[in-house]
Amino acid sequence: MAKRVLLINGPNLNLLGRREPAVYGATTLAEIEAAVVAQGKTWGWQVDCFQSNHEGALIDRIHAAMGEVDFLIINPGGYTHTSVALRDAVAGTAIPTIEVHMSNIHAREAFRHVSMVAPVAIGQICGFGADGYRLAMEAARGWLKETS
Amino acid sequence: MAKRVLLINGPNLNLLGRREPAVYGATTLAEIEAAVVAQGKTWGWQVDCFQSNHEGALIDRIHAAMGEVDFLIINPGGYTHTSVALRDAVAGTAIPTIEVHMSNIHAREAFRHVSMVAPVAIGQICGFGADGYRLAMEAARGWLKETS
Amino acid sequence: MAKRVLLINGPNLNLLGRREPAVYGATTLAEIEAAVVAQGKTWGWQVDCFQSNHEGALIDRIHAAMGEVDFLIINPGGYTHTSVALRDAVAGTAIPTIEVHMSNIHAREAFRHVSMVAPVAIGQICGFGADGYRLAMEAARGWLKETS
Amino acid sequence: MAKRVLLINGPNLNLLGRREPAVYGATTLAEIEAAVVAQGKTWGWQVDCFQSNHEGALIDRIHAAMGEVDFLIINPGGYTHTSVALRDAVAGTAIPTIEVHMSNIHAREAFRHVSMVAPVAIGQICGFGADGYRLAMEAARGWLKETS
Amino acid sequence: MAKRVLLINGPNLNLLGRREPAVYGATTLAEIEAAVVAQGKTWGWQVDCFQSNHEGALIDRIHAAMGEVDFLIINPGGYTHTSVALRDAVAGTAIPTIEVHMSNIHAREAFRHVSMVAPVAIGQICGFGADGYRLAMEAARGWLKETS
Amino acid sequence: MAKRVLLINGPNLNLLGRREPAVYGATTLAEIEAAVVAQGKTWGWQVDCFQSNHEGALIDRIHAAMGEVDFLIINPGGYTHTSVALRDAVAGTAIPTIEVHMSNIHAREAFRHVSMVAPVAIGQICGFGADGYRLAMEAARGWLKETS
Amino acid sequence: MAKRVLLINGPNLNLLGRREPAVYGATTLAEIEAAVVAQGKTWGWQVDCFQSNHEGALIDRIHAAMGEVDFLIINPGGYTHTSVALRDAVAGTAIPTIEVHMSNIHAREAFRHVSMVAPVAIGQICGFGADGYRLAMEAARGWLKETS
Amino acid sequence: MAKRVLLINGPNLNLLGRREPAVYGATTLAEIEAAVVAQGKTWGWQVDCFQSNHEGALIDRIHAAMGEVDFLIINPGGYTHTSVALRDAVAGTAIPTIEVHMSNIHAREAFRHVSMVAPVAIGQICGFGADGYRLAMEAARGWLKETS
Amino acid sequence: MAKRVLLINGPNLNLLGRREPAVYGATTLAEIEAAVVAQGKTWGWQVDCFQSNHEGALIDRIHAAMGEVDFLIINPGGYTHTSVALRDAVAGTAIPTIEVHMSNIHAREAFRHVSMVAPVAIGQICGFGADGYRLAMEAARGWLKETS
Amino acid sequence: MAKRVLLINGPNLNLLGRREPAVYGATTLAEIEAAVVAQGKTWGWQVDCFQSNHEGALIDRIHAAMGEVDFLIINPGGYTHTSVALRDAVAGTAIPTIEVHMSNIHAREAFRHVSMVAPVAIGQICGFGADGYRLAMEAARGWLKETS
Amino acid sequence: MAKRVLLINGPNLNLLGRREPAVYGATTLAEIEAAVVAQGKTWGWQVDCFQSNHEGALIDRIHAAMGEVDFLIINPGGYTHTSVALRDAVAGTAIPTIEVHMSNIHAREAFRHVSMVAPVAIGQICGFGADGYRLAMEAARGWLKETS
Amino acid sequence: MAKRVLLINGPNLNLLGRREPAVYGATTLAEIEAAVVAQGKTWGWQVDCFQSNHEGALIDRIHAAMGEVDFLIINPGGYTHTSVALRDAVAGTAIPTIEVHMSNIHAREAFRHVSMVAPVAIGQICGFGADGYRLAMEAARGWLKETS
Repeated sequence: MAKRVLLINGPNLNLLGRREPAVYGATTLAEIEAAVVAQGKTWGWQVDCFQSNHEGALIDRIHAAMGEVDFLIINPGGYTHTSVALRDAVAGTAIPTIEVHMSNIHAREAFRHVSMVAPVAIGQICGFGADGYRLAMEAARGWLKETS
Repeated sequence: MAKRVLLINGPNLNLLGRREPAVYGATTLAEIEAAVVAQGKTWGWQVDCFQSNHEGALIDRIHAAMGEVDFLIINPGGYTHTSVALRDAVAGTAIPTIEVHMSNIHAREAFRHVSMVAPVAIGQICGFGADGYRLAMEAARGWLKETS
Repeated sequence: MAKRVLLINGPNLNLLGRREPAVYGATTLAEIEAAVVAQGKTWGWQVDCFQSNHEGALIDRIHAAMGEVDFLIINPGGYTHTSVALRDAVAGTAIPTIEVHMSNIHAREAFRHVSMVAPVAIGQICGFGADGYRLAMEAARGWLKETS
Repeated sequence: MAKRVLLINGPNLNLLGRREPAVYGATTLAEIEAAVVAQGKTWGWQVDCFQSNHEGALIDRIHAAMGEVDFLIINPGGYTHTSVALRDAVAGTAIPTIEVHMSNIHAREAFRHVSMVAPVAIGQICGFGADGYRLAMEAARGWLKETS
Repeated sequence: MAKRVLLINGPNLNLLGRREPAVYGATTLAEIEAAVVAQGKTWGWQVDCFQSNHEGALIDRIHAAMGEVDFLIINPGGYTHTSVALRDAVAGTAIPTIEVHMSNIHAREAFRHVSMVAPVAIGQICGFGADGYRLAMEAARGWLKETS
Repeated sequence: MAKRVLLINGPNLNLLGRREPAVYGATTLAEIEAAVVAQGKTWGWQVDCFQSNHEGALIDRIHAAMGEVDFLIINPGGYTHTSVALRDAVAGTAIPTIEVHMSNIHAREAFRHVSMVAPVAIGQICGFGADGYRLAMEAARGWLKETS
Repeated sequence: MAKRVLLINGPNLNLLGRREPAVYGATTLAEIEAAVVAQGKTWGWQVDCFQSNHEGALIDRIHAAMGEVDFLIINPGGYTHTSVALRDAVAGTAIPTIEVHMSNIHAREAFRHVSMVAPVAIGQICGFGADGYRLAMEAARGWLKETS
Repeated sequence: MAKRVLLINGPNLNLLGRREPAVYGATTLAEIEAAVVAQGKTWGWQVDCFQSNHEGALIDRIHAAMGEVDFLIINPGGYTHTSVALRDAVAGTAIPTIEVHMSNIHAREAFRHVSMVAPVAIGQICGFGADGYRLAMEAARGWLKETS
Repeated sequence: MAKRVLLINGPNLNLLGRREPAVYGATTLAEIEAAVVAQGKTWGWQVDCFQSNHEGALIDRIHAAMGEVDFLIINPGGYTHTSVALRDAVAGTAIPTIEVHMSNIHAREAFRHVSMVAPVAIGQICGFGADGYRLAMEAARGWLKETS
Repeated sequence: MAKRVLLINGPNLNLLGRREPAVYGATTLAEIEAAVVAQGKTWGWQVDCFQSNHEGALIDRIHAAMGEVDFLIINPGGYTHTSVALRDAVAGTAIPTIEVHMSNIHAREAFRHVSMVAPVAIGQICGFGADGYRLAMEAARGWLKETS
Repeated sequence: MAKRVLLINGPNLNLLGRREPAVYGATTLAEIEAAVVAQGKTWGWQVDCFQSNHEGALIDRIHAAMGEVDFLIINPGGYTHTSVALRDAVAGTAIPTIEVHMSNIHAREAFRHVSMVAPVAIGQICGFGADGYRLAMEAARGWLKETS
Repeated sequence: MAKRVLLINGPNLNLLGRREPAVYGATTLAEIEAAVVAQGKTWGWQVDCFQSNHEGALIDRIHAAMGEVDFLIINPGGYTHTSVALRDAVAGTAIPTIEVHMSNIHAREAFRHVSMVAPVAIGQICGFGADGYRLAMEAARGWLKETS
């Protein structure tokens, strides 16, 4: 069954491939997005991608997706750890959501161990670099099978 | 005496009526704004309304109101609990401000018990749903009587 | 529809008008109570008033109101921040309750930011001086409309 | 050997049977007290009962019991978690004391997990509803056997 | 009605009678177990006893009791304060459980005041030495009467 | 110049001479009060004494002293560490206040190190047993000389 | 390229299918293990499975795998949050490790938000029920591609 | 050697000269920017200035400066204390950065003592009002000498 | 009976009369010391005075007083709140010690509320300005009467 | 005088020589044990060695040593920081105990700075690698001289 | 206008050039002092330099400067984070003070993030190595212009 | 190979033999120093001893030892728990350092559990009384063998 997915990347993820490659790898965001779109296509799914450094723009985009998408895959970047507003957007729109982090946030500074979004998401995947997005797509498909 | 009021609603409040109705009720933001404007009109007051999910846009709007309005009624939504910038905007413009929350923030998650804005506002009203905005208008009128 | 309201003021509120006028204003408690009674009368409501510096007396009075009043408006004064017993009295009698504080408790010492009562009340109003009681009455009326 | 027991119940326990029955059951305090008196009578013990919502009255009653009773069984209600004065009354009179709570305080809000009185009591029994008082009487009898 | 009870004692309780008698008394664990078995027999109940210093063995034993016993009486010893695994075993098997401590844990080091198991048990009894086990049996019988 | 002093003792201080003599000495409260009255008399001062185990009664008595006394000497007992209401009574009546503790509260349990009253008093004297009251009288006299 | 994987499940996971199905689903551990073995077989990988409620047995098993396996997939259950020893076993053997949790640990009690193992693992996957194990296998395969 | 500097001012700094002059002085942001540009010109440096109340816009601007500027001088305003995203932008672009605050943040509210940005900057200058920007330029020049 | 007293003043107390007179008054340290010496003389006591800004010198002086003095009256100034070494000197020499503070340390910054020395002293006197030293002498005399 | 020593090593110490050599060195546990046995032999002492990854097995072994050994030298590994049960085993058997750590636990992660066992041991030695065991033997010998 | 400056360096700064050059650079303290003196000379200012590892000596020197200098530039070294006495010296003498740190204290251990001195200084400069002293001189000059 | 050792004892250790013998034993510091010197002599090592109650003097002495000694054995006394300056002296001179405490600091007040010096030392030995110094010498010798 065809599904629609919204892939959202938060602040600084547009730097991927340029920024701290030791931590985040050399793959660019465009490459990641293309891979996720392609992965979806093999299942007949449509994936829309969005990136912004603006907390408000991320919220606006999630609102716009309400009723339009079956799944939200989100890497909230630095907003993960502090944004009540993003959490409320996810909870308020009630779109099934999967949180992804490329780095292992539990192995970094203490302030990165906590996520404001994860408690209102289905689950969280972190530490697998760009491959985390592929896993999130797999998780979405698995979740659909389980709940349909 | 005719007064000008700026009513600001922060992130996710545009979802009102659609979002978590068990918590926030079925009234839409447009209905709330219309009611506040009408309430003001009966006193000869002018009420301008603004909503944004962007922290920066909220701050910009407050700046623009400096010297233009007599009162700020604000529901800062998720930014309530973390935004030093919003607090500084309220304190910096020195517009008399009333903070409103539709839900009883003291009965929810611990991180919602604290407000960064309240310490620089006149006062806070929470827990009365959409009626909280009417009460804030009443509070503004009462405050004017007391201080004029 | 005629309603019965119990207005309770806790410790030191009998000093109003005499005590720290810079913080609490010059209005006496008797004047506040008279104003609330009068406000209720215009709606056909009956308001009973009670003040005590005794935590136990406040609890006794709340118990006595069980099944007798439609609303409790309470300013628990210094007991706000520590009294589990008062909280249990409000929760145990299940009388719809509105918490009022004349000062903006969020702008004072840190130990005043927390309320033990607020989580079991409908909502909280603070920072508007004596006018807070009028607002609480308005809040009660609004709440009745909404829930009836 | 005939023993004298003082059974003290603190704030809101007079509401038993009327208050939050899902948490505290339908038994009234009078029924509980009667059962404890009867239980004592089967052993030839005398049980006096006292309830008050006043912290000071509880302390007065404990003082009056000094040298008059062999055991204090106390459910300090909401004063459990904050009252240094009650703790000092128990420690100061040195009456062997057993603390009882009807609900499982360790399964409720965090502020109920701590008892100011328990550290100066023989022990604590919680979570068994009205039956907790019967257990406390059994504990008193067991303690006497052990220490006599 | 005949009931089956599993009595579990955790680490170091095999030392009873030999270990810190000032704190735990001179009664041995074998004597305690014999007394509980005898107490059960007077009611037509069967009591099985188990002690281990191994957290995993305690969990295994609880699992084995699933569907086999009506009640678990447990003194988790030093695992009380840290074992999430033991808590999950109690919660996962859903056997009605009573937690016992011989010493008054609330009067000892701060790290002993918290129990991981108590929040998923019916209740907790502490401070009455070996007699606490008899009280736990009484509590079990009382709980059965109340819920049957 | 004749001065009027109100000496207030809080909960459990009526036990003095009977309660924990190792901590508080063998002097009774009546003896302490008599000594303070006598001390005052040598200076032509009038000292009124009051003791209660009721927080509310202590507050009532402080209110009654407003405008009637030049000095409040208070040992708030167990209310020292938690009572916002007592603090507000002292601050609200603005009577110059000296806090006394017979034991050295800084050498006891951590929860006794903090005083809610001391920050609104002139100063604090602790650790000198019954003699602390004499020192407080001396402090009052010294303070009058300095400020008159 | 053929790979060897060790799948370890910690305490209480043997209860799967029987324990709190609302939280963990109805799938048994045997079914999960069979699925992971089958998944591995399609890639020519060998998967060995191990479950124990004993912290020490988990550590022993990890030690035995040193030099024998290419990947450790582990759900440490209740030991996740407290076991320094398990963390040291993972770090000490230096086997690439993926941590899995069936429930969304970030949406449960605060003490479950922290993992002692995650900081020394490649990454963490939680919230996807039994499907989390499939995702972990996918993550292992992705990680091998990336690092080979 | 000609250098390019980007001067970024965060939320509410556009209010300078109008906002809380007792804290921030009467100089406007335009005057500050003009002074910094002029200061740079005397060394043959080019200074670009940017101010925004939008966290996302600040991040966008920093990204745009990557590879274009030799130095970032930033006063992150209220975002200083909470913005992980801004910190990641500075760390990710790896532009040598100097943090400036006009007020002495260590002498204000506790939440202003911590900076999320400072740990990834070269250093921090605070408390010198508008002159802090001139000092930051001097610091940049000094740093270049030292590292070239 | 003739007694020997050592009066020690710590860092910055040599500034008395010059430093922050609003907090500490206009009396100089020499005047205070002269007054204490004179006060002692009226009782036939000998008072030696010492002031230093050096933590080590204060400790040296206390050591030298061992066996030489009957009483130590000390205002440890800024070392009060952090000096374990000073505490150990007082405890180690076992000289009966009275701690004095001119200001009410409980009404100042939070870090001044805690004293490292007070727990090993007889008692503490604070808030009475220069008169606190006279009170400490009185306290010493009272303590001698009580313990001799 | 011939003495018997029990040397216990906790979880992961069997990996010594294979595990994180940068932290723990290249010496194996067998080599360490042999060296300690040899060291004891030169004094006519008998040393028994035991290692286990099982908390319960460590406790069992300590129990078995009660009355059989004069000294316990223990490196509790990862159980050091969390095991109340191990602490109780040491305290309960009352065997004089010396705690050893090869690494300097005070220079590692914060959770390793605290030891549950140290407060009931004679002392602690850490940071000297395998040589720490030799030092512990020396410490045992020194302690015997001092106390015999 | 000729100004007098006192440059104070605290503990371990005499090691500069020898100590941890990766953190503090290769410049010696003598070189730094010479540069600051020279910098002052170009403005007609006189700079006196002082270094000590003794907290008391630093305080003595600051006292001696009272009324003698126009500015204090201080790097309190390790005393920065704990010395109430140093803070009181700065506050008590009321000499305008600038705090300098060569390293970026906000990027080091958590205990270095807090300064006891900064809240009573004009401002703080950190992270610019030896150049920080030059910047502090510039800051002093700027501050004089602004306030004269 | 001949080695030079500097033995430093901090505040109050000159009191040894006179001070709290129950905690520290009856041996004097001179005896301890003589024993360590003698111990060194048997190995052909030279040991210099130094004691001071002055934090600054301890630092000065460590600085003077730079390049002169092979080992520092230090008991920092009360400065252990608070002195950043001492820690920096040890780290800055990079002399291999062993920290000794006569008492078991982990069994005393909580503020003694933390050492500022230990994280920059090789290791820590505590709880063995005067014998701890002998063990430290042994540790030094062991460390030299291992690293040479």
